[in-house]
Amino acid sequence: MEIVSENKCFGGAVKVVSHRSGVLGCEMKFSIFIPAELRSDHASIIFLSGLTCTHENFTTKAGAYKKAAELGMIIVAPDTSPRGDNVPDDADSYDFGKGAGFYINASEEPWSKHYRMEDYIVKELRSLLLEEFDLNEGAMGVSGHSMGGHGALTLYMKYPDVFTSCSAFSPIVAPAQVPWGEKAFSRYIGDNKDEWLKHDASALVGDADISRDQAILIDQGLGDQFLTEQLKPEIFEKACEEAGQSLNLRLHDGYDHSYYFIQSFIDDHIAHHAGILKNAS
Amino acid sequence: MEIVSENKCFGGAVKVVSHRSGVLGCEMKFSIFIPAELRSDHASIIFLSGLTCTHENFTTKAGAYKKAAELGMIIVAPDTSPRGDNVPDDADSYDFGKGAGFYINASEEPWSKHYRMEDYIVKELRSLLLEEFDLNEGAMGVSGHSMGGHGALTLYMKYPDVFTSCSAFSPIVAPAQVPWGEKAFSRYIGDNKDEWLKHDASALVGDADISRDQAILIDQGLGDQFLTEQLKPEIFEKACEEAGQSLNLRLHDGYDHSYYFIQSFIDDHIAHHAGILKNAS
Repeated sequence: MEIVSENKCFGGAVKVVSHRSGVLGCEMKFSIFIPAELRSDHASIIFLSGLTCTHENFTTKAGAYKKAAELGMIIVAPDTSPRGDNVPDDADSYDFGKGAGFYINASEEPWSKHYRMEDYIVKELRSLLLEEFDLNEGAMGVSGHSMGGHGALTLYMKYPDVFTSCSAFSPIVAPAQVPWGEKAFSRYIGDNKDEWLKHDASALVGDADISRDQAILIDQGLGDQFLTEQLKPEIFEKACEEAGQSLNLRLHDGYDHSYYFIQSFIDDHIAHHAGILKNAS
Repeated sequence: MEIVSENKCFGGAVKVVSHRSGVLGCEMKFSIFIPAELRSDHASIIFLSGLTCTHENFTTKAGAYKKAAELGMIIVAPDTSPRGDNVPDDADSYDFGKGAGFYINASEEPWSKHYRMEDYIVKELRSLLLEEFDLNEGAMGVSGHSMGGHGALTLYMKYPDVFTSCSAFSPIVAPAQVPWGEKAFSRYIGDNKDEWLKHDASALVGDADISRDQAILIDQGLGDQFLTEQLKPEIFEKACEEAGQSLNLRLHDGYDHSYYFIQSFIDDHIAHHAGILKNAS
């Protein structure tokens, strides 16, 4: 593990960390914001970014660290896929291959060796964070944007012992039913659609062993160019209703898919996690 | 004039604008944040960026728009030099040519035709902003970072009728005495050091027709890699003392030259301008 950069920010530190990932078979980077004054429970949020992003996008553009410093929350921003010359890619696709790991473990060739972002986030990165950065395994939340919103929702449902709170911006809530998800799932895990549903938040929520009373917070811009074709929050809303799952879906007039949208509401997400994690720990 | 992009942000809008600059002889871009609720005086801040930057750095990384929305302040972020294939450059220098206009008018060849950032900011861009965006010529402040801090200080002193308030992050306060300034001034305006002093905040402050009681706000990180060789805030501090100029110079332990520093204190700068402009208008 190597600290690539460290910058003081709102009294705390933003560190960019490089490390060898055994799970992914490559070097990976992530950023971590550590406030000057941690909460006693060392609560943290893992923020999963969207298509084409690296750790940098959230780190430089989300404007999250003022509120994180105020509330004493650690925030980690991982990369979105394996990286490096040895990792197979689909250079013509912005929505598949590098920058598009979809937070699942690939089973199909040539992707299955490196594209294991689910294990990376939930096992390897988590272990490293717990060992090296004093995070508390009982007080971790997960959030994300777009593809990372899909990641946040599904990893929260699949790993209720890992993540205690969940929120998302503009998430892909039903990947098995939209082009981005269809493309990624068919190539990463094959054509069996039963397999797809194991990684689809709207399909998972009914059986997920998560608190029904504890709300999932979702912010969605109504000016989002991907809203009707790729995101379809109404599918998840209906699934939550049927499951009796508490959902705080906020629809925002005029906002798009960009970090200008994320920065406008990120403080609410940090407070959402801070509140739940405080009660839980 | 063309609106290149527009994103809703904290209820207002971040627009990136492209326009033909007659002064610079090229296409130029700037960003403008327009809050949903303007103050009655339509107050604004022009933020001048540092070496290597375009309009984008402040726009995406400064985290300024939450406070600007709250206080109803317009913020404009121009580019730092003329641009385009027809504009001469020194491709080997990050601190001269494109990305390094230094907010002065060049007199030397081959720079004098395009490198006229002083006239661009104070005349052409200002006029365009007053015409197209409802800014108020009586309520404009100027701020900036590094080379842009030099720009903010010197344009405030040279044009007290244009800019009513001033602040800076990590400014080059004495360009005539440091390598960045020596390189830029000798090539843009020649070897006559008397000319250099006309664009040096520490030399200008004694004679500048600005309010002695109204503080200039400067934030400077003590972990800034450029502090002792290029920035030297103590020179400006001494010049302000001798001039009886009110200066609020805040030195911050551990902060560096990056946008992580700027975002940590940008709210104070917006409030600084908002307070002065409110009293002035």
